[in-house]
Amino acid sequence: MNLDNVLEIIKKNVSHFFPEEEFIKKYNDFLNNKRGPLRVKYGADPSRPDLHLGHYVSLKKLKDLQNLGFEIIIVIGDFTAFIGDPTGRSKTRPKLSKEEVQENAKTYLNQISKVLDIEKIKIEFNSNWLSKLTPYDIIELTSKYTISRMLEREDFKNRFNENESIYIHEILYPLFQAYDSVFLKADIEIGGEDQLFNFTLTREIQKAYGQEPQVIITMPILIGTDGKLKMSKSYDNYIAFNDEAFDMFGKIMSIRDELIESYYKLVLYQEIDEELKTFISENPRMAKENLAYEIVKLFYNEEIAKKVRDEFNKVFKYKEFPEDAIIYELREPETICDILLKVNFVSSKNEFRRLLNQKAIKINNQVINENILINQTTFVKVGKHKFLKILKHDN
Amino acid sequence: MNLDNVLEIIKKNVSHFFPEEEFIKKYNDFLNNKRGPLRVKYGADPSRPDLHLGHYVSLKKLKDLQNLGFEIIIVIGDFTAFIGDPTGRSKTRPKLSKEEVQENAKTYLNQISKVLDIEKIKIEFNSNWLSKLTPYDIIELTSKYTISRMLEREDFKNRFNENESIYIHEILYPLFQAYDSVFLKADIEIGGEDQLFNFTLTREIQKAYGQEPQVIITMPILIGTDGKLKMSKSYDNYIAFNDEAFDMFGKIMSIRDELIESYYKLVLYQEIDEELKTFISENPRMAKENLAYEIVKLFYNEEIAKKVRDEFNKVFKYKEFPEDAIIYELREPETICDILLKVNFVSSKNEFRRLLNQKAIKINNQVINENILINQTTFVKVGKHKFLKILKHDN
Repeated sequence: MNLDNVLEIIKKNVSHFFPEEEFIKKYNDFLNNKRGPLRVKYGADPSRPDLHLGHYVSLKKLKDLQNLGFEIIIVIGDFTAFIGDPTGRSKTRPKLSKEEVQENAKTYLNQISKVLDIEKIKIEFNSNWLSKLTPYDIIELTSKYTISRMLEREDFKNRFNENESIYIHEILYPLFQAYDSVFLKADIEIGGEDQLFNFTLTREIQKAYGQEPQVIITMPILIGTDGKLKMSKSYDNYIAFNDEAFDMFGKIMSIRDELIESYYKLVLYQEIDEELKTFISENPRMAKENLAYEIVKLFYNEEIAKKVRDEFNKVFKYKEFPEDAIIYELREPETICDILLKVNFVSSKNEFRRLLNQKAIKINNQVINENILINQTTFVKVGKHKFLKILKHDN
Repeated sequence: MNLDNVLEIIKKNVSHFFPEEEFIKKYNDFLNNKRGPLRVKYGADPSRPDLHLGHYVSLKKLKDLQNLGFEIIIVIGDFTAFIGDPTGRSKTRPKLSKEEVQENAKTYLNQISKVLDIEKIKIEFNSNWLSKLTPYDIIELTSKYTISRMLEREDFKNRFNENESIYIHEILYPLFQAYDSVFLKADIEIGGEDQLFNFTLTREIQKAYGQEPQVIITMPILIGTDGKLKMSKSYDNYIAFNDEAFDMFGKIMSIRDELIESYYKLVLYQEIDEELKTFISENPRMAKENLAYEIVKLFYNEEIAKKVRDEFNKVFKYKEFPEDAIIYELREPETICDILLKVNFVSSKNEFRRLLNQKAIKINNQVINENILINQTTFVKVGKHKFLKILKHDN
């Protein structure tokens, strides 16, 4: 394949790809048999076992690179995970045991196999090298970067300027992550756009260790089901590889209209031409249904996609259910009464019973007569004007 | 000994001693046999083999504490030394080998034995525990302190505010130093006043590890022979334990009059009463001679002190040699001609020879006739008005 084609494939959908000239040199060296295949690193945090469509955006690009003959290395960040989350977002989360990490990593691989040919990828656990660093190694590593440059990272800068605590181990993380690339001699690193700082830092650390620095590829951020934040396990606004087909379909049906285009582009890799733009803007409900159908097809198959679409449409008559219905995230089975109390649709159990008697509560378009247990994605209507989407999350 | 006496001994000359109530509790527990002797930590950096009067100020206090029955632990910072100087002052200094560190440490002990009973002290090399820390241990340690609090340390703050680079390993050093106290379960740490930040940080790290924090004793800073900076190996303004008696005498004779009082107080432990104040202000030359005599006596003996005093006075007639003569630091043997060229007392070798012929060059009050090699503290007069003190430094 000629270089122009390769570059076109790589550049599709990416938000950053640089330095292009360094990539070209590496690739030409490969073509001229001066070196082996380019080594592409992708880091995965095994602290929670769910991959989601946000990861899919990067994995899809990895798939492209795999097809181009590059060597794909998935780095399972078990060293990081074992230690706990550095960002302070979930400080109280207990450290994972080695067994839990291994278990999570195994489910990761199953999920990754839905996108990549895992026979051909290399899986590396970063504890294999990071846990063997001596204090002298760590001092060497930390001597290669300054405090002020580290504090230029957006989240650190904000926290520092607002006098929020940044614990010293937190700034070690980007360095450990960089050391992964040093150890693996990564030629390319790929990840979400929020990794840009870390990847750039990594280039400098590689140079400081006398290595050729990695080429950077970042993918745009996919916004989650909340319509605001990047899709992330931490924000619980994600559509998981492992979601049941009906839940996956329902969650995609619940995204905001403004996001439809980005999902077509980043998940389905579709060209956003005039025709598609018109379709989305004139018939967002239909565009979303099509999107949901295609994505379920991607992770399951055509038959299942058709089945859940029909099922969904049966319980959810067109246009009856408003797009901006309230959303409730379901983590474990709960009774409909408890849920309605939590979202303030009813103010007491008495009111709930009164509404039941009035046949005013509909679940998936069916009137209910008793308090039932909810354990999946469900659409609820109370009276004439109150709408609730219950979205199931597995965690 | 009653508590008041103990407190009086401890407080003499110190610049900080706190928290007193914690000390009292520890000491009472010891008296009531609820615990063993209080453990006093003193850190020594073996990167250069010279102890000097600045160290003596702390060692003298350690001697007091040893006399009170406390357990003295000298921590040889060979972990730090092996890694190199963190302050960036001497970046290019090569890392020391293990053998060099051991060798330096040995000479340290010889020097310490001039002050403390080394049969009764414990010597600990901090590489014994610090080099065995795992990355997990280091992350735990670094998770106990924040960046912003670390940047409150005077030197870090100044460098940070002036956009000078602070490398990340530099902020690990106070934490490693703190870990020494954790590992040794130090009850008291003693050092120069410039250690106040590190010692206070150490209290917090000990608490974070569930330990009773150490009591802090800091000693005032002794100003060196340059009259400006703290006595330090890095500034080469020091009077070493190992200086030859004549050099030691000469260096003390060269300190500025304003410093005489602090040397009487901090080195000789003398009460600065009205009588002494008057003596110093009315006869600084004599006060300095007495000081030099007493300090040489401390490190050698009375006989040697007398001998070097007489020798010094023979070569150096009272008042002839001005206090503010130019000082030249002698590191290795050099010819007098080379030295005079360096300090611009002569502008060429020809001028040097002309002056020799004119019998215009006096060394230690003796006219010289040829270019001689200088290898000790020496007083030079050139012509009628040019005075030079050559101070020998061993390093």
